[in-house]
Amino acid sequence: MVITGEIKQDTVAYADFEKFENQVVTIKGTIHNIRMMSDFAFVIVRTARETVQCVYAEEFSDYRMSEDVKEECAAKVTGKVVAGETKDGGKRYELQIHNIELLSHPADIPPVVITKKQVNCDLSTNLDYRPVTLRNPKERAVFKLQEGIQRGFREYLTKQGFTEIHSPKINFAGAEGGTNVFKLDYFGKKVFLAQSPQLYKQALVAVYERVFEIAPVFRAEHHDTSRHLNEYVSMDFEMGFIEGFEDIMNMETGVLKYIMELLRTEYANEVALLKVDLPVITEIPCIKFMDAKELLMKKFKYKPSDMKDFDPEEEQLLGKYAKKELGSDFLFVTHYPSKKRPFYTMDDPADPEYTLSFDLLFRGLEITSGGQRVHDYNAQVEKMKSLGMNPEEFETYLMLHKYGAPPHGGLGLGLERLTMHLLGAKNVREATMFPRDINRVTP
Amino acid sequence: MVITGEIKQDTVAYADFEKFENQVVTIKGTIHNIRMMSDFAFVIVRTARETVQCVYAEEFSDYRMSEDVKEECAAKVTGKVVAGETKDGGKRYELQIHNIELLSHPADIPPVVITKKQVNCDLSTNLDYRPVTLRNPKERAVFKLQEGIQRGFREYLTKQGFTEIHSPKINFAGAEGGTNVFKLDYFGKKVFLAQSPQLYKQALVAVYERVFEIAPVFRAEHHDTSRHLNEYVSMDFEMGFIEGFEDIMNMETGVLKYIMELLRTEYANEVALLKVDLPVITEIPCIKFMDAKELLMKKFKYKPSDMKDFDPEEEQLLGKYAKKELGSDFLFVTHYPSKKRPFYTMDDPADPEYTLSFDLLFRGLEITSGGQRVHDYNAQVEKMKSLGMNPEEFETYLMLHKYGAPPHGGLGLGLERLTMHLLGAKNVREATMFPRDINRVTP
Repeated sequence: MVITGEIKQDTVAYADFEKFENQVVTIKGTIHNIRMMSDFAFVIVRTARETVQCVYAEEFSDYRMSEDVKEECAAKVTGKVVAGETKDGGKRYELQIHNIELLSHPADIPPVVITKKQVNCDLSTNLDYRPVTLRNPKERAVFKLQEGIQRGFREYLTKQGFTEIHSPKINFAGAEGGTNVFKLDYFGKKVFLAQSPQLYKQALVAVYERVFEIAPVFRAEHHDTSRHLNEYVSMDFEMGFIEGFEDIMNMETGVLKYIMELLRTEYANEVALLKVDLPVITEIPCIKFMDAKELLMKKFKYKPSDMKDFDPEEEQLLGKYAKKELGSDFLFVTHYPSKKRPFYTMDDPADPEYTLSFDLLFRGLEITSGGQRVHDYNAQVEKMKSLGMNPEEFETYLMLHKYGAPPHGGLGLGLERLTMHLLGAKNVREATMFPRDINRVTP
Repeated sequence: MVITGEIKQDTVAYADFEKFENQVVTIKGTIHNIRMMSDFAFVIVRTARETVQCVYAEEFSDYRMSEDVKEECAAKVTGKVVAGETKDGGKRYELQIHNIELLSHPADIPPVVITKKQVNCDLSTNLDYRPVTLRNPKERAVFKLQEGIQRGFREYLTKQGFTEIHSPKINFAGAEGGTNVFKLDYFGKKVFLAQSPQLYKQALVAVYERVFEIAPVFRAEHHDTSRHLNEYVSMDFEMGFIEGFEDIMNMETGVLKYIMELLRTEYANEVALLKVDLPVITEIPCIKFMDAKELLMKKFKYKPSDMKDFDPEEEQLLGKYAKKELGSDFLFVTHYPSKKRPFYTMDDPADPEYTLSFDLLFRGLEITSGGQRVHDYNAQVEKMKSLGMNPEEFETYLMLHKYGAPPHGGLGLGLERLTMHLLGAKNVREATMFPRDINRVTP
């Protein structure tokens, strides 16, 4: 036997039905729903991205539907493609069934109804039965859309000359630190799960100039909120030879424009099914952190609890302001206070109390943190010392600076959080295939 | 301030020098190497994927090179593009330096020489200084090539209608089991790091029909060999509605053809620099496991130590046989004994001692394991019981089968191992950016 790599194509996709009008074709898929009528039946077949309406009636053929034909059977269905009309006058196709060949049989009926427009159970039950509930067309569309988001991020950056990296998730001490790291027993050594690819992506700007990574990161969050996960997919990039942190914001703006356009064109089915209100991006306005605080106090009469950061309500107010006054779903907030940004953030030479950093708010929710990094060795050592850190513990990290680094900066973007907010969902778990939080590690 | 997403392009890439012959352009990059001659100097500038030869001589301009211009400075170099000849008569371009603007300065000279054709130190030192040694053009080319491999895997499968997934790496007990799993303390619960996305990719064939993932997996390997890593990047796919396990082998053959073609065209620089002998794939021959054993005993007079699996020497002999007798760098070995394959592997109905599974050998090294999976609930429960497993512990996994799964199968392909073997390297660490093994978790 030899294998040639030829992919057999003996079935027809619904998208191609137009070409086969009044012809007999075979489709493959899962029997999603059977609705018996008085003298005919609808058999809805679920394919990878669509549901196809098939009609069974004795008048079409000599085939007689057996009792074995059940929901969640895998099947090949042969029939004639016929054109019909949708409610709004559009053309739609259905298949007049000539034959059904069953390829597999479930042992039981689903524990949750997945044939309705949505899965009508509470979120926790939905998550418990994820391998089943994801079969619902609306549920699975969420993660097809999510595929589009990360694909857009990757495609755009690849076109811009970025190199894709895969940095290690088992990290040694001192990579980034903090309290919310997961500890792992590694043959008697104490190691950590990566909170971010920060160390590695910075090291690699001195190698490839521009790098990105799409990979899991781990945060040992102790609180159970609607917007935190203990494992999520982080989309990170880092770019060298920047002239200012505006270069990073421009790159992100380009990424977001590209993603939205990709979703609009290649994920139109999912966008329609989920009724996603895709933002139209022409340009993104910016506001300085302190100006935003002032705005909140003066315009919105809001009393901030923390002058170094925003609380969720402040973010929402800024989101409303951006939409109403500036006509934008997005708002860059720049120049965060030095005290609230990580040790690798570059201070603004014009005012070192503030940094050359930014957050991006999307409809009132922070989806990105980014900024320019310190690239000079002595400056980074000094900054560490001033923060009470011991530079000797960061010897590996500082190799980048010691042996020469171009001016650089970057950002991180949480995939699930962006998906959630595009959907207008209330809980990030709705936009996470298999969420991990303090109470959940299954399925 | 508003951000438009426009990406400034005020420098020229070496690849575009042809268009700028005899014109003055600016390039940006890192001063890679300075070679002083009697009355001129070569200044080699390292850009993201190339090194550009620049020439400094007082006759070209009024610029006088300062002592601050040092190796590993980031710089903008302005000069005139002039054409010259390569040793073999080809055309090459260099830049006659008019000005050098320094953008950053290293604090020290590299601990390892990175300006030679290769980094001449032992592997362990090379790995200790990875943030520096990767700056060597040959070292970094390895991982640019690796990018091409995973990119080819993704692009081909995307074209074939696969959905990209990101499954969780924090797994609960019983996902796949085995002894070499890393255990993690998760808020007092005992959880595991994913050894493979097996459970998730199978669950998702009932959702998207075809899925793939490129992500880290973790194996607590206790032995320190030249071909094992404790964390590596696994390229996995799983496809539903297969008619036999040949469909999986065909898909893999298509993937490999596409990857090699992508490397040949878009990674030609790296292929040339690393002298990679890219395999030409037209078709891949197959041999059954027991026939291979017989061949090894009869033709090669080899006495197998284990009749259920191959040792590395047997794999090498089979590689030589495939190359010499069948003219192929690749060989599929099919129908492995049931006893040596995981519980989810489908037995061959014609002879249940063997399975509908395969390994792919590439030049005498196993790079893939794959096969058809059990999709019927009762068959899977029976198989588990016959192996002494308790199906109740696999309730989540078995949701797939219980509620209906199409016939399906898939495979996993180790990114670093494939890269290693393409390079003809002896140790997988040479093809791993930041390797993790029993002795190493840094940098």
